[in-house]
Amino acid sequence: MCELLGMSANVPTDICFSFSGFLNRGGGTGPHRDGWGIAFYEEGGYREFRDPHPSVDSPIARLICDYPIKSRVVISHIRQANVGGVRLANTHPFTREMWGRPWCYAHNGQLEGWQALPLDVYTPVGSTDSEHAFCWLLGELRRAFPVAPASFEPVAALLHTLCERLRGLGVFNLLLSDGESLYCFCSTKLVHITRQAPFGEAELADADMTVNFSEHTTPCDVVSVIATAPLTHNERWSAMAPGELLVWQQGSIRARYGPY
Amino acid sequence: MCELLGMSANVPTDICFSFSGFLNRGGGTGPHRDGWGIAFYEEGGYREFRDPHPSVDSPIARLICDYPIKSRVVISHIRQANVGGVRLANTHPFTREMWGRPWCYAHNGQLEGWQALPLDVYTPVGSTDSEHAFCWLLGELRRAFPVAPASFEPVAALLHTLCERLRGLGVFNLLLSDGESLYCFCSTKLVHITRQAPFGEAELADADMTVNFSEHTTPCDVVSVIATAPLTHNERWSAMAPGELLVWQQGSIRARYGPY
Repeated sequence: MCELLGMSANVPTDICFSFSGFLNRGGGTGPHRDGWGIAFYEEGGYREFRDPHPSVDSPIARLICDYPIKSRVVISHIRQANVGGVRLANTHPFTREMWGRPWCYAHNGQLEGWQALPLDVYTPVGSTDSEHAFCWLLGELRRAFPVAPASFEPVAALLHTLCERLRGLGVFNLLLSDGESLYCFCSTKLVHITRQAPFGEAELADADMTVNFSEHTTPCDVVSVIATAPLTHNERWSAMAPGELLVWQQGSIRARYGPY
Repeated sequence: MCELLGMSANVPTDICFSFSGFLNRGGGTGPHRDGWGIAFYEEGGYREFRDPHPSVDSPIARLICDYPIKSRVVISHIRQANVGGVRLANTHPFTREMWGRPWCYAHNGQLEGWQALPLDVYTPVGSTDSEHAFCWLLGELRRAFPVAPASFEPVAALLHTLCERLRGLGVFNLLLSDGESLYCFCSTKLVHITRQAPFGEAELADADMTVNFSEHTTPCDVVSVIATAPLTHNERWSAMAPGELLVWQQGSIRARYGPY
């Protein structure tokens, strides 16, 4: 299995603290040695860093820890390969442009019978179940909405239905974003925490590192982190329910779908 | 205007030497302060690094100089903005998936009336003439070939026709790749050099740096570099002709179209 990390914030925020703990799971405190990636949305633009090598040894990952990239939406993934070899083309997150926006996707879990999911506009580059499911998801959304709907709601409602179909094929924990909304679907495990004033101290569970958020924030900041498992051991993280889709915007939950 | 840098090689090769000189033009010896990017094809996978800040000051660019990423095809670009603000969404290279491959594109020049080029499957994320032209190019290729042709030739022939149409709208120097072929179209200026045994020494024109390629290569290596202007001052670079399209594979020119 892999691990997921997402962030949604109402001000451009760096993810150095959370990522420092997360990347230690990539071959350090965790078994996820088969690559890692992180994607940042900035000023309507998008960039990602991916490496098929363990994050704990990666000079690129170290750079990301030390070089604060400010973003409102971040998606990251560390991989323990099951379907598809360890190579760059199989390294999450995956990206495709839809409706003039870069859509970013990362998946934790494993699917059965995914080869039968029909593809349309989007074709996988690599050989993973994850990327195939992504191409199917976006293809279905685009088939339903040839142009972007005026609001996120119809997209989220259809996405929830599609995620439930994928959950029927196995384990499908999802992070997906277009840069505005961060869609999180829980199949087995996803937890989240929202940090806002009054800010306190947090201690990483996977590295010897503490941060006092009050020194790095303003009273209006709202920053939420979503992950496969809690990244800190002195804060209370909330667990999502299997079958639940949360839509995050500006650091807060904007909508909730399921479980039904 | 911007500057382009491309590489095609028959063995995975790092571009640290050429990129070290090239990035000095991004705010150092050159005026191209408005961002830079570089894309690598590796083992069928693809990754890119982009930054809207000057390359000469960028810690990410420094990392790329020091961290040898081995690749058979590389495309890089440093930007001096004309159409579209200085932001990540307007930073080359641009990427879209077509036929299950990541297509990478960088453009030097400026176009008139580009807004009228009709779009189909692909929509720009940013606001540049360059990305619009890219979306149009891929859309036209995909309309002509809904599935990937068995060889590159029909793609190259149509691409040449499309590039000639773009040249009619202004200046359109192009680097484009699907990871196998590197397509280079010259509108005003592109030069290239092929290095193979017996390898010699090269001195960068933009930085105080010399490399003896014989220490870093085997006798079978063939490595070609394509750029807006020569990167070294003690080697002989060949100039392309306006209206000419070269198709590089494995470090060598595989086909030539135009000028007509």
